[in-house]
Amino acid sequence: MNLDMWYTEKQDDGLGISLKVNDILYSEKSEFQQIDILNTYFYGKVLYLDGLLMTTEKDEFIYHEMISHIPLLSHPEPKQILIIGGGDGGTVREVLKYPSVKRVVLCEIDGKVIEACKKHLPSIAGRLDDPKVDIQVRDGVTYIADHKNSFDVILIDSTDPLGPGEGLFTEEFYTNVKQALKPNGIMVAQSESPISNQREIKLIYGILNKVFSNVHTYVAPIPTYPAGFWSWCFCSKATKPLEYINEELQAKIEKETKYYNKEIHNSAFALPNFVKQLVE
Amino acid sequence: MNLDMWYTEKQDDGLGISLKVNDILYSEKSEFQQIDILNTYFYGKVLYLDGLLMTTEKDEFIYHEMISHIPLLSHPEPKQILIIGGGDGGTVREVLKYPSVKRVVLCEIDGKVIEACKKHLPSIAGRLDDPKVDIQVRDGVTYIADHKNSFDVILIDSTDPLGPGEGLFTEEFYTNVKQALKPNGIMVAQSESPISNQREIKLIYGILNKVFSNVHTYVAPIPTYPAGFWSWCFCSKATKPLEYINEELQAKIEKETKYYNKEIHNSAFALPNFVKQLVE
Repeated sequence: MNLDMWYTEKQDDGLGISLKVNDILYSEKSEFQQIDILNTYFYGKVLYLDGLLMTTEKDEFIYHEMISHIPLLSHPEPKQILIIGGGDGGTVREVLKYPSVKRVVLCEIDGKVIEACKKHLPSIAGRLDDPKVDIQVRDGVTYIADHKNSFDVILIDSTDPLGPGEGLFTEEFYTNVKQALKPNGIMVAQSESPISNQREIKLIYGILNKVFSNVHTYVAPIPTYPAGFWSWCFCSKATKPLEYINEELQAKIEKETKYYNKEIHNSAFALPNFVKQLVE
Repeated sequence: MNLDMWYTEKQDDGLGISLKVNDILYSEKSEFQQIDILNTYFYGKVLYLDGLLMTTEKDEFIYHEMISHIPLLSHPEPKQILIIGGGDGGTVREVLKYPSVKRVVLCEIDGKVIEACKKHLPSIAGRLDDPKVDIQVRDGVTYIADHKNSFDVILIDSTDPLGPGEGLFTEEFYTNVKQALKPNGIMVAQSESPISNQREIKLIYGILNKVFSNVHTYVAPIPTYPAGFWSWCFCSKATKPLEYINEELQAKIEKETKYYNKEIHNSAFALPNFVKQLVE
């Protein structure tokens, strides 16, 4: 397009991230949300849901490596994996790097997100057709309630706590997540920006601290998320982060990653003072 | 103001950060650059130089703590400090927390920046009148050439490598910086965004690796800088980072900081794979 067109994601508190747009590749309203895939000048192809930036070709590796490798390398033999949300397929792609993984259930409420990403974002969604992947197009809230003691690792790769992701931010949901984990299982949930989403972080950690005995925050920069700084929560019944790391596999994984490596794993749990105050 | 007014800093490659503006507090063109101080909805009062966001009341603590405490706590007794750039005064404020510091030279080319920040950003600039502070309104390039073997710590708190900061990104300048350090002195320079400024990072590290025998990168998220992820370079003739840390003083400093603490210090040098490739 010849227009000098910019899309600005205006975030609730007077902050916006603007991207120069070359083309609109996909724009449809599903049963759940508005889905747009744009080709942008700086971040390549990007996915917006209800106007909020979810993932970009240029920086998606940070989010997807960090949500996956921290828990999977902390488990001695992850076989059964559940991803709730994550319809873009980036987390599936990382999880399939583990030889021990037998099955990855992707429970995504919106089938149109999966189809759009498979067509327009193949570098992210390209492994969704792998035979180990069991795609369940349904609500994670009901799926998790039906599967007790079933998973080694559960990854909550959700949108923000409004719109279709809202039910993923309740005590009932996380109680079911805990029950769906095997005894030495690990859950990681994205837990929003410690700068832009301080209210949401307090809500999420309030719930997680009630449900899990081990609750540990880790952080990384995500250029395209509000305020550029993101957090995840590592929760379990038994396993503490950094107690056990599969170092042999880590050495192989970090040869293929662009963000994650051994030093990043060891340092990601170091929290700035203002983040400690939010999550403790 | 009643207008729903937003200012978008359009960065060179089709990326922008937009802030909702409540008021324009100061807007003048100096001999060197356009200076604007705006009151914004999300980040409080903010300083733009030539339309580029330099510092904000809400997140300035990350940048100023990280440029100061990493080198100052790595030196056994920092007495003589030179800051080049840094007219907003935030780095001076952090450096004055060290009881050993006898004198802080602030060498800022643009006196109007200092005056505007003293008037409109007192929480950042409020220590510029301290009797230990020696303000030199002149070009850092010529100042540094005149002061051999004079400083324990030199902090290059510069703008980007264009406009008035351009001369601070040359081999000649850094050779003079090295000569201005005492034998066990440490220099830290801001070294741009590993995501947005990859060309500049290669330029800066190419120069620093020629001049210094010890060159080490550290990183932190800075919400208001391009792509939200920033780097600094720790350089010296002798001292390596993490070899020595003044732990007694660190325990006091980290009680007052909002970002910096012991674990952050130890983890800031852990670099993502894509950053390692840029700086090595």
